[in-house]
Amino acid sequence: MYDKEFEIIGKKLFSEGLVTANFGNMSIREKGGFFITASGSFLDESTEPVFVSDSGIPCPGASSEYRVHLETYKRTTAGAQVHVHPPFAVAASFSFDEIVPQDTEGKMFCPLIPVVKGDAGSDELAQNVADALTRSPVVIARAHGTFAIGESLKECYILTSIVEHACKIIYYCGGFGGLKL
Amino acid sequence: MYDKEFEIIGKKLFSEGLVTANFGNMSIREKGGFFITASGSFLDESTEPVFVSDSGIPCPGASSEYRVHLETYKRTTAGAQVHVHPPFAVAASFSFDEIVPQDTEGKMFCPLIPVVKGDAGSDELAQNVADALTRSPVVIARAHGTFAIGESLKECYILTSIVEHACKIIYYCGGFGGLKL
Amino acid sequence: MYDKEFEIIGKKLFSEGLVTANFGNMSIREKGGFFITASGSFLDESTEPVFVSDSGIPCPGASSEYRVHLETYKRTTAGAQVHVHPPFAVAASFSFDEIVPQDTEGKMFCPLIPVVKGDAGSDELAQNVADALTRSPVVIARAHGTFAIGESLKECYILTSIVEHACKIIYYCGGFGGLKL
Amino acid sequence: MYDKEFEIIGKKLFSEGLVTANFGNMSIREKGGFFITASGSFLDESTEPVFVSDSGIPCPGASSEYRVHLETYKRTTAGAQVHVHPPFAVAASFSFDEIVPQDTEGKMFCPLIPVVKGDAGSDELAQNVADALTRSPVVIARAHGTFAIGESLKECYILTSIVEHACKIIYYCGGFGGLKL
Repeated sequence: MYDKEFEIIGKKLFSEGLVTANFGNMSIREKGGFFITASGSFLDESTEPVFVSDSGIPCPGASSEYRVHLETYKRTTAGAQVHVHPPFAVAASFSFDEIVPQDTEGKMFCPLIPVVKGDAGSDELAQNVADALTRSPVVIARAHGTFAIGESLKECYILTSIVEHACKIIYYCGGFGGLKL
Repeated sequence: MYDKEFEIIGKKLFSEGLVTANFGNMSIREKGGFFITASGSFLDESTEPVFVSDSGIPCPGASSEYRVHLETYKRTTAGAQVHVHPPFAVAASFSFDEIVPQDTEGKMFCPLIPVVKGDAGSDELAQNVADALTRSPVVIARAHGTFAIGESLKECYILTSIVEHACKIIYYCGGFGGLKL
Repeated sequence: MYDKEFEIIGKKLFSEGLVTANFGNMSIREKGGFFITASGSFLDESTEPVFVSDSGIPCPGASSEYRVHLETYKRTTAGAQVHVHPPFAVAASFSFDEIVPQDTEGKMFCPLIPVVKGDAGSDELAQNVADALTRSPVVIARAHGTFAIGESLKECYILTSIVEHACKIIYYCGGFGGLKL
Repeated sequence: MYDKEFEIIGKKLFSEGLVTANFGNMSIREKGGFFITASGSFLDESTEPVFVSDSGIPCPGASSEYRVHLETYKRTTAGAQVHVHPPFAVAASFSFDEIVPQDTEGKMFCPLIPVVKGDAGSDELAQNVADALTRSPVVIARAHGTFAIGESLKECYILTSIVEHACKIIYYCGGFGGLKL
């Protein structure tokens, strides 16, 4: 179930350059847990999502980033989540502790985008992302990518697109100012 | 009616990166009013446009930016309008009060692109955009996006593409010089 | 005739971002003249090319840039021509009188790309482009776009792609250094 | 055989902008040798790959870069190879002797990307690339492009995508610092 919805949004994410290769993952909340894309799957291809229970027990093949999704579903009322690696957002995350969009849509839908830390797949990242998502519907994990929550995958995708657009505008207006590591 | 024409131009706008997610809107003048894309619709998908009467009464679901289209149809003989968020044009709008294209096509078709102000959906924006469109077939709303008018959606799309190309060339020639807020 | 070949190459030119909207034109030499894309046609759509005789008499609807193609067929043995507006190549043309590719393919296939002047559609442009094409299979008209010649449209497209790649590499290595007007 | 697999990966490489025109080549190890894409073929089109024996005798039409693939299969256990020209990776190769990714995926999958020298098609390039591929699953030939090895074409494509993403992030964080020739 949901596989068609995952594929439609996955193709949109690809066509805008928000993710490449077999990176990123998406999930939809379901009674007793959530369905998440399989580990290593290509978001723009048709694949069967994998169930993870609310108690944190993933079925075989679930994306290793299920910890972030699990923690976020615990702490928010999100119905869906999308995590991808948009290049301008990732690059911006090295220079800012929070991104303040300058464009109209960014100001309207995510006026202050938190940038959080944590190794991919770690509990620290899960905690930091979930915590930030209680304050903003979309956050950037430094050096890694965006995490967006919403009612549906479509809403998450739109938020992700807004963040990348906002970061692109900031970049074209004068750059990010180099790495801050 | 017109839904096929909207979809064809919408797909072209997407494939060139002139708009992302569910942003932007398009309209075609019709006897007694105009048809405009629905609020929140994806321009690259097949959707039913919504009628807005000349007296400014929108049918349910019309894009919230119908005010700009309404005002523009009042003050020009435009047959169609396209509003999107091309990233180079939006970024350029922070640094210039008007854009002077340096490339051949820009010089020929829109030698002086006005940059106007106003909050999205506001009457101020509607007035400023409509006013500028009496002087130039395409304008940029600062921090927001382009508005183009023409005989047809195709003509509006071509003008939009010219503006983004012109801004891209200026950017690659040395940047926009940072934010001017 | 040739319409399928024009469309295939046109779609490739679009998918690489070498041309947008309804810009650019392509032609194939034929006994007694050449077939050229119609004025205002979209290179990625199926359209009927228009015949232009060797004596320079265009059938109705021929691209206004037929003069360049005519002059080039007179002075070279080219079997086909492609003219498009690749953004990095156009931007580079403002800063250089000739482009010296730094990448392997550029060095191999077009080690010195001439940059010429002339208004779009003018005899001056036709003369300058045709003249430069006797020395290099691809040239850039300043502020305007590339002209490539070859045995076939495919060969012209490949050369155009090489030029844009070469200019992109130069740009990413440190920029073009601003406008030189 | 394998032609479908080549085409699928070729289309992915194109859609991400990792290669353009008819550049790049791919191969799959086979009993007694390997299959490689034909010289001049478009990676995103369906074409018949050509066999090259372990003793280095290519069937007619094999990509001229078969020497690199041959040498690499001799010195590694790779099951497949992909060579393309990703623009950010190529540009980065002028400024660095090795690329140190700053993004999470780059750090995880190719923490130190060697940059090697050698003319396209030369034995020197074959030796340098094969040598570097014993230390890293993906390398960049300066001014030329990436070479990736893996179990399958898919794995090679993913590695290539990671390298281009890593170089893109470094570029957006402050540029490559100009040519070092």
